[in-house]
Amino acid sequence: MLLLEALGFAQARPEWVAKVRSWVTANQQPIVTELVELLSIPNVAADRVNIRRNAEHLRGMLQKRGFTAELLETAGNPLVYGELKVPDAKRTLLLYFHYDGQPVDAKRWQQPDPFKPETRGDRIYARSASDDKSPIVAMLSAIDALKAAGLQPTSNVRVILDGEEEAGSPSLVPAIGRYREKLNADLMVILDGPEHSSGRPTIAYGARGIATVDLTVFGPKTGVHSGNYGNWVPNPAQRLALLLASMKDEQGRVLIEGFYDGIAPLTPQERAMVNAVPDDRASMLRTFGIASPEAAYTELQVALQAPTLNVRGLSSAFVGEGARTIIPDSATAAIDIRLVRETPSDAMVEKLRAHIRRQGYHLVDGAPDDATRAKYSKIARVAVGRGTNAFRTSPADPQARALAAALRAAMEGEPIHLRILGGTVPIAPFIQALGFPAVLLPTVNFDNNQHEENENLRLSNLFEAVVKIAAILRM
Amino acid sequence: MLLLEALGFAQARPEWVAKVRSWVTANQQPIVTELVELLSIPNVAADRVNIRRNAEHLRGMLQKRGFTAELLETAGNPLVYGELKVPDAKRTLLLYFHYDGQPVDAKRWQQPDPFKPETRGDRIYARSASDDKSPIVAMLSAIDALKAAGLQPTSNVRVILDGEEEAGSPSLVPAIGRYREKLNADLMVILDGPEHSSGRPTIAYGARGIATVDLTVFGPKTGVHSGNYGNWVPNPAQRLALLLASMKDEQGRVLIEGFYDGIAPLTPQERAMVNAVPDDRASMLRTFGIASPEAAYTELQVALQAPTLNVRGLSSAFVGEGARTIIPDSATAAIDIRLVRETPSDAMVEKLRAHIRRQGYHLVDGAPDDATRAKYSKIARVAVGRGTNAFRTSPADPQARALAAALRAAMEGEPIHLRILGGTVPIAPFIQALGFPAVLLPTVNFDNNQHEENENLRLSNLFEAVVKIAAILRM
Repeated sequence: MLLLEALGFAQARPEWVAKVRSWVTANQQPIVTELVELLSIPNVAADRVNIRRNAEHLRGMLQKRGFTAELLETAGNPLVYGELKVPDAKRTLLLYFHYDGQPVDAKRWQQPDPFKPETRGDRIYARSASDDKSPIVAMLSAIDALKAAGLQPTSNVRVILDGEEEAGSPSLVPAIGRYREKLNADLMVILDGPEHSSGRPTIAYGARGIATVDLTVFGPKTGVHSGNYGNWVPNPAQRLALLLASMKDEQGRVLIEGFYDGIAPLTPQERAMVNAVPDDRASMLRTFGIASPEAAYTELQVALQAPTLNVRGLSSAFVGEGARTIIPDSATAAIDIRLVRETPSDAMVEKLRAHIRRQGYHLVDGAPDDATRAKYSKIARVAVGRGTNAFRTSPADPQARALAAALRAAMEGEPIHLRILGGTVPIAPFIQALGFPAVLLPTVNFDNNQHEENENLRLSNLFEAVVKIAAILRM
Repeated sequence: MLLLEALGFAQARPEWVAKVRSWVTANQQPIVTELVELLSIPNVAADRVNIRRNAEHLRGMLQKRGFTAELLETAGNPLVYGELKVPDAKRTLLLYFHYDGQPVDAKRWQQPDPFKPETRGDRIYARSASDDKSPIVAMLSAIDALKAAGLQPTSNVRVILDGEEEAGSPSLVPAIGRYREKLNADLMVILDGPEHSSGRPTIAYGARGIATVDLTVFGPKTGVHSGNYGNWVPNPAQRLALLLASMKDEQGRVLIEGFYDGIAPLTPQERAMVNAVPDDRASMLRTFGIASPEAAYTELQVALQAPTLNVRGLSSAFVGEGARTIIPDSATAAIDIRLVRETPSDAMVEKLRAHIRRQGYHLVDGAPDDATRAKYSKIARVAVGRGTNAFRTSPADPQARALAAALRAAMEGEPIHLRILGGTVPIAPFIQALGFPAVLLPTVNFDNNQHEENENLRLSNLFEAVVKIAAILRM
């Protein structure tokens, strides 16, 4: 198989693996206890008091394992930083985690308090159980397990714990200016996100970016009676529909000029990598309740390699009980554009704007004034949200290859290699600014209900994560 | 002018007009007092107690003028009925008014109580001041004024006062079964609605009907992460946009097969009638804040002669603060179709359904089940609201011509003739079921804020309505 050739031959299982597995089996209770203690400290990014309690607690956890640890102060929440130097290090790894979590709506949970973890069946339920506190505990347990086996990491290990990931990681890039020396490494490993739904060890070499825009088409100044003026006053909801239809066809192919510019066809290696991902198409179709995917992208992994134009919301006047027989005053589509490395945010938004202009629209920034309304028949606004670019590391990068080889050997099988994740990680600008390669090593269960109520972690994912991270530490 | 030729030559002003005008001038105060008393009885259709107070008060007002008056009981609110027979009657007229009004949101009014009328400037402000209590008072004053001049109507006059117009007039058609004999006439005159914005006397010979549908396109069972599945899971908001775009083009022309079937081009007479309406295009464009109308219908009166397809609302997931990066589970367009006589409601909805099917959709009635989702790639629902057909009376109808001639003579000028109103009147099925011609004689000011807060009536419109209705009574 081309992919295996590209990534190197299979290696024998290292002897430390059995020792680490035995240690984990013997220490399941203290590992879980350490996680439960950490999950019991509320960690919503806006809760400054508890965020700092988390940070100080984590600093202590790092110090307990011999890390030189400190809080790196920022304009926002502190970053928790730790460093563990080893003799004859092969490289320096920067391990990224985040310790903040999504806000909670406790009423919707099946337990009284999302910050009082509960174990039901083989899972722990709590906010951040999966996203992203358990990988931190797994990493520290991996250090413990190696130490119990008389081993150290083979790389210098730097750890950065973000306290604002769920708020978009605004302090990461600014931190580079102040703490550049501490953040240098040969490879960043991002320990966040769910593994592939097959449950197999997963490496992701990148992630799509995102740009969000709200596109508003303006109609009459106020809603106008659809009987008295219907056929005469132009309808902005209809015009929005025509505009959206001009942007993307029935097959799901984006028609905006230059939208796919610069994107090369997949190489045979990349194609093999994409083909090797064991997506269960029938199961996904059943789960989502759809008979077939977009015609232009019948394979999920192929679909994820391209940028998207996604209407994530529509709004114009009222639908249902409140509906009135009017020509609405405006119609808005909330759009997200998922980006790939070749299609940066600013350029894509400009292509969108150009497309809308080519459809005859005059673009305004705010609400159109009377003079603008009198002058232009078609008026629209493109309100741009914050953009995050994509990142992608070549699987042929030597550090990435070493990581893949270590994981393959320890886990006794080919990992799933994802060329890019479909979703977006807010640390992409941080990765770009640092300038060294980065890969994601997701460890938690696919069905962890991340960001929602009843977030949970399968305990087996926690214990397997210890082995996976030990493999990275020994790569 | 063709229209004048079609409708008959101008007549000299009848001698009674000056007498009626003098009487009105002398009796402004008692006319207004009678209106204020009527407006002081709350008249929301759902308020059964006060609705009956209105009905009984109105019966008394009719009886005072010599009408044989009674309440016609229905399954809903009573109809108030009155009859005034005259010797040697030329015909029988059925005059339609409604005595119920729109619900009120008192907080939004500039006065404490919309049912405590206030006079500011030359207007009375109160719920139903214009819609539709003042025409009733004007009609009774016209009887008084003629009597003071020693005159009677030249037609037998039947009066029907609807207590549920703002609730869709559900009791009118059923009332025909019970009260057919009382309702027969040669011509129905509907005294409701605002006159043309020019302020000139206005006759409308019909009104468009309406059909409402909510069109929902289904996507995945629940919202799906737009990163993880974008390009692969089809987006129902995009599909709705494509579907709407397939229905109506950039020019505002509906593309649904057969949508305009059966509609003949305007005859030269009709064209002349339409051309004679003095719409102030520049003023309308300025008022609505639009640079130009729909390309297919640059003249308002031409636009109103055709059926419409109007997107009155759009909804899918969230826009603005609540927006999430998902592929929505569904997208809905609330649509109203304004109908003309040649395009009845049921047939038009069926053409819409057929069009959607031709775009590859499977139509469901409720939410699609798993088997349906597995079988059909494109699934939509068309939920149909209540339809009201259009009505149209030929301006060449002898009774309609007589009415126009009487109005022209009394008001000393050509009335504005509207072939049809763009909006819909809920009594259209009543008109169709009765089977004799009907015209609308709107008398209140264009800017009366009908249905909204601060509904008002210009007093001059009230006084002129007395003369207009006297003309109808003497036609």
